[in-house]
Amino acid sequence: MVLAAVRADLVEHGYDSLTIDTIAVRSGVHRTTVYRRWRDVGGLLTDVLAEATANIWQPPDTGTLEGDLSAINREIYAALTADPPITTALIAASFRSPGAARALQAFWTDRYTRCRPVVDRAIVRAEIPADTDPHRLLIAATAPLYHQLILLRTPASQALPDQAAHDAAAAATAGAFTSQ
Amino acid sequence: MVLAAVRADLVEHGYDSLTIDTIAVRSGVHRTTVYRRWRDVGGLLTDVLAEATANIWQPPDTGTLEGDLSAINREIYAALTADPPITTALIAASFRSPGAARALQAFWTDRYTRCRPVVDRAIVRAEIPADTDPHRLLIAATAPLYHQLILLRTPASQALPDQAAHDAAAAATAGAFTSQ
Repeated sequence: MVLAAVRADLVEHGYDSLTIDTIAVRSGVHRTTVYRRWRDVGGLLTDVLAEATANIWQPPDTGTLEGDLSAINREIYAALTADPPITTALIAASFRSPGAARALQAFWTDRYTRCRPVVDRAIVRAEIPADTDPHRLLIAATAPLYHQLILLRTPASQALPDQAAHDAAAAATAGAFTSQ
Repeated sequence: MVLAAVRADLVEHGYDSLTIDTIAVRSGVHRTTVYRRWRDVGGLLTDVLAEATANIWQPPDTGTLEGDLSAINREIYAALTADPPITTALIAASFRSPGAARALQAFWTDRYTRCRPVVDRAIVRAEIPADTDPHRLLIAATAPLYHQLILLRTPASQALPDQAAHDAAAAATAGAFTSQ
């Protein structure tokens, strides 16, 4: 009920007007209860994110490195351009709420760890060198989306997820991301 | 004097307490004067950023693509890990101030445009294919720094700038970033 109120409020008014008090009023839950359980807006957004992202998430297995990276990037792109913009609201919140920053950090650490099999499978298929650093490759594949959509505020382009995946896969195939 | 006051206030109190009034008091400049010239906090931040970044900036010319990208990345790394953290304070501010967001966007657009000769020179030296997309290459080289230091909040590592430069140069040499 409380998290549904957060989602609804984000949709209608955006992040700036989101407060524990408005959520308490909107959800009909006593503000003391909301404060005790979630402490701040960051805590609320953290649980909205956790709820939106099943913790049984596994990276897709398409049969190729580029296909897998494209599928991952399409999910990230969808999250970063979603309406309501839960993820971007949480990123904005992370600059003001240490709780939101920690939640995002934990979420991303978990996701990058879960994505490692994508790199392992590409190594097994001999698509890329055996000493490819999974983290560097996964960061290279995904960072352009975050950089362009969140920091540079480049208008969203459907081509972006596949392009970044293509470039990172080509780089890995050529032996980038190996120990230098 | 006014801009110095903005920098000092940002570092000491962060963006949240930054107002035209506090800056007027701190700088000793009459608030009407500050209002007339800068209008809002976004205007002040815009000029702080403009002042910090000389508009005669040129990318380094080291003789190799990887060398040039490393030099650019070391500058970005220095800015993102600087103390006082002006750049990160501006990035944080950009999520709440449309003026700060526009200022950052203009700054980055300018910088990426100024970096294009790095790619042109590499093409002339036949280091990379002639149809390499300069923007995609420059984003790939720099995005991992922003992603790791700003969003993932990975502890700073001196190896990061060179590694991202190396990986992007290797990718470009292998023909990534060409039209697909």
